[in-house]
Amino acid sequence: MRLPDWLAHRAATAGERLAIIAGDVRWTFQELDRRAASLARRMVGLGVRPGDRVALLLPNGPEFVELAHGVGRAGGILVPLNTRLAPPELAWQLGHAAPRAFVYAPQTEPAARAALARWAQEGQTGGEAASSEVAVLSTEELASAPEAADASLRPFVELEAVHSILYTSGTTGRPKGALLTYGNYWWSAVGSALNLGLCAGDRWLANLPLFHVGGLSILVRGVIYGMTAVVHPRFDPQAANRAIDEEGVTLLSVVATTLARMLDARGERPYPPSLRAVLVGGGPVPVALLERAARLGMPVVQTYGLTEAASQVTTLPPGQALRKLGSAGRPLLPTEVRIERDGRPAGPGEVGEILVRGPTVSPGYFREAPVAAAGRDGAGQDAASLSARRDGGWLRTGDLGYLDEEGYLYVVDRRDDLIVSGGENVYPAEVEAALLAHPAIQEAGVVGIPHPEWGQVPVAAVRLRAGWGLTAEELLAHCAGRLARYKVPKEVRIVQAPLPRNAAGKLLRSRLREQWLEAGAGGGGRGQEVSPGEP
Amino acid sequence: MRLPDWLAHRAATAGERLAIIAGDVRWTFQELDRRAASLARRMVGLGVRPGDRVALLLPNGPEFVELAHGVGRAGGILVPLNTRLAPPELAWQLGHAAPRAFVYAPQTEPAARAALARWAQEGQTGGEAASSEVAVLSTEELASAPEAADASLRPFVELEAVHSILYTSGTTGRPKGALLTYGNYWWSAVGSALNLGLCAGDRWLANLPLFHVGGLSILVRGVIYGMTAVVHPRFDPQAANRAIDEEGVTLLSVVATTLARMLDARGERPYPPSLRAVLVGGGPVPVALLERAARLGMPVVQTYGLTEAASQVTTLPPGQALRKLGSAGRPLLPTEVRIERDGRPAGPGEVGEILVRGPTVSPGYFREAPVAAAGRDGAGQDAASLSARRDGGWLRTGDLGYLDEEGYLYVVDRRDDLIVSGGENVYPAEVEAALLAHPAIQEAGVVGIPHPEWGQVPVAAVRLRAGWGLTAEELLAHCAGRLARYKVPKEVRIVQAPLPRNAAGKLLRSRLREQWLEAGAGGGGRGQEVSPGEP
Repeated sequence: MRLPDWLAHRAATAGERLAIIAGDVRWTFQELDRRAASLARRMVGLGVRPGDRVALLLPNGPEFVELAHGVGRAGGILVPLNTRLAPPELAWQLGHAAPRAFVYAPQTEPAARAALARWAQEGQTGGEAASSEVAVLSTEELASAPEAADASLRPFVELEAVHSILYTSGTTGRPKGALLTYGNYWWSAVGSALNLGLCAGDRWLANLPLFHVGGLSILVRGVIYGMTAVVHPRFDPQAANRAIDEEGVTLLSVVATTLARMLDARGERPYPPSLRAVLVGGGPVPVALLERAARLGMPVVQTYGLTEAASQVTTLPPGQALRKLGSAGRPLLPTEVRIERDGRPAGPGEVGEILVRGPTVSPGYFREAPVAAAGRDGAGQDAASLSARRDGGWLRTGDLGYLDEEGYLYVVDRRDDLIVSGGENVYPAEVEAALLAHPAIQEAGVVGIPHPEWGQVPVAAVRLRAGWGLTAEELLAHCAGRLARYKVPKEVRIVQAPLPRNAAGKLLRSRLREQWLEAGAGGGGRGQEVSPGEP
Repeated sequence: MRLPDWLAHRAATAGERLAIIAGDVRWTFQELDRRAASLARRMVGLGVRPGDRVALLLPNGPEFVELAHGVGRAGGILVPLNTRLAPPELAWQLGHAAPRAFVYAPQTEPAARAALARWAQEGQTGGEAASSEVAVLSTEELASAPEAADASLRPFVELEAVHSILYTSGTTGRPKGALLTYGNYWWSAVGSALNLGLCAGDRWLANLPLFHVGGLSILVRGVIYGMTAVVHPRFDPQAANRAIDEEGVTLLSVVATTLARMLDARGERPYPPSLRAVLVGGGPVPVALLERAARLGMPVVQTYGLTEAASQVTTLPPGQALRKLGSAGRPLLPTEVRIERDGRPAGPGEVGEILVRGPTVSPGYFREAPVAAAGRDGAGQDAASLSARRDGGWLRTGDLGYLDEEGYLYVVDRRDDLIVSGGENVYPAEVEAALLAHPAIQEAGVVGIPHPEWGQVPVAAVRLRAGWGLTAEELLAHCAGRLARYKVPKEVRIVQAPLPRNAAGKLLRSRLREQWLEAGAGGGGRGQEVSPGEP
């Protein structure tokens, strides 16, 4: 099924309305449409053809926004890379995505260069070898690239087509590229509007990273709704509060840690009634924090979302926020949620794995199809073949929760091994793999422990090979070259005893976490070396 | 594709919110959901099975609303009949729809009885013979009918399933039953919300007949949006104005004639800012009327709609109402519109036939499939086989209009032969067929002429067989027994000369209309007999 291009439609129906506010930049829908079309013609000039991937390594800002819309207009698939990643991580994702073009900004140029060098050096990494066919250019170079005069841009959006590939940390230690279609975003936007409403003058603050689904989906909703997106370069609690007071922001998305920082910066001043809803996602939220927000008149609604479901899966209906405090709400209208425990449906109140089905659910991960046709049509092929791999259309999230008698979801815990740190997902397996790359390390176990500011932080217990010596500092330096900073363990303990494992040799991370917490904080914080004999 | 049942979803997310205001009746979504489920169980008890038709002959009111939702919950297909129809017309539609149940109200009982008698007497009319298997009952009888304890009601809405059959006057003289699916209504509601917005506290006034798509679609949008529908028994200009001032109505749908009557009754008092949008449909609207509404602060947006497209096809974006005065707006997001002239696409500004494509377009007319499987699965079969009969997915509306440079539609004229009288469609062929049923009449031609209150009214020119005499009064009495009152010609002229026809013998109605208007109004108004020798 196809729809008229969303942005072009809004340029025609609300051309004078502001599409983007980003610092001093103010673009109407007409202006954004013109810029997206121009960028799309440049993309075509660079050799981007329908189905080609275009990778971005850009901070939040207007350049990201116009590219996010321009890539699709040229028929390309957007691959926004996480600017916090270390060069080896970026190199792997570039190799896996095999983009036709790669765009960086002045701020990200060093990381981009280092990643490209690493990709070239490693050759075939996750996917394809570094190739001279990749157009690598800065946003400035892109701005002066010639437009392809004969470019025929797509006037329609095909709901089945892949819009973007978003890499998420993988449970197996390697990232996975979640394919999100135009339809996934469309249904997510429709479901969200039917829950939160859609008012003239709505402005959604995008101060989470635009390379994550939480930020990117605001840009897409903006053009579907004809709504202004207010883009901040990064999360800043004062700026967020000011945007609500002075920039007319009516909606925003936060995680528990950023919500707490906004309230800390706020003091006792109530929020204005123009603030319609504040979505809090990214894992369980302390009820005390929700109550604190409510006292300042902030209309908080908790939400449960996933990259693989184009953001919101369940969200509290605004009118139910206080009655159902602590719940992540009901499934948005197009989506179904069920809880499964030991392979059978769980009853009301019974905790089990959260399963999700519906039109917002990704068709699969890029290159995970058994045999995907190589080359330009790869993305589409993968999408089709992967959709059959899910369980009757149900996506197994691995997260734990329950539904109450009225069908409201309560998220009890993200999947056992997932660490959510300041809104970023950290998979222990990935950090363990980086640790095990050091020749001195025989065993490594990574778990999340509570942290007052970031919710959770990763910590590591490692056992050395006989005859090797290594300080925790050396180990952290080893990690820093391989992992994004938020993934680097905030504390490392070197242990003598083997790590707890089950009979099959599987690491028992919950047991490891218990041991860690029982032993108590080591005192020295980051990089502390624990004396032999401790857990 | 399926969605959770809309009404049940709203009962769970906005249970305490008002779903319906109708006189003294105030039902929350929870109450409406409970009533719909109860009615659905009664329907099952009456023998209604998935795919069965349930015909209603009910005035606007709460009974209509709960049945509109209850029939679907039992898996039935809603067939709301026009309460203005004459018994022979109703009998034909009953025969065609072959409902499993037929529900009437105290006010419509005489018409229902007469229609049933006629159906029984004629046997096979349009479709199936009158059968003792039809459960015929009043709303009171239905209220005391037992619920089927073991009824399993559908928890989901299948977008491909038929929701209702709406009979429209046919160009060939017989009504056609347009099949509208859940998906048709869903996409219409989504497209409308993306254009008009969706605000907490929205209330849509339903004072047009609920048996027409304009009224029925308000009820469906209400449960999709979680919005209150304010149901009036009929259009009354004072009551409509009062609903805006005192009942919190924020949205309403009118036609040019009812808009004019509201403004007449209003005087100089401006409308409150809570009134968000007034949709004016049902054909071209005089610009002077739009300007008059704008002067009173009424936010009028013109719309172009069709039964076969689940109501709105194009609607003005509210912000463009004054800049594009006189336009019916842009296609709602899921819909495409193009103009065709002499079999080729028309350029901007060029008048041609309006074609419509998209997910709001009906899959076809009931029983128009070449060979449809008889019985309970008939509706579904028809839908599938008819969808192929359209022209590459494009519905030919027969209406004339043009698109401007920005893609805004201007409706120039409804299809040549269609008469729109007070928002009701009157097909000349149907009225001519009724006239020709009189043995004295050799030729009959019906056209619409302008009317200050109703927009247009039908008038008839007839030529008598040699040797027969007939007064216009006798003729009108003949019509009154066969046709709804709004279809009965408001004036009849008996002419001597043959009616204007082309070489193939096809009646040239446009020429006939010119002749009529050139001859001038006859003076006596209704039923006047024109002396021999006149046109």
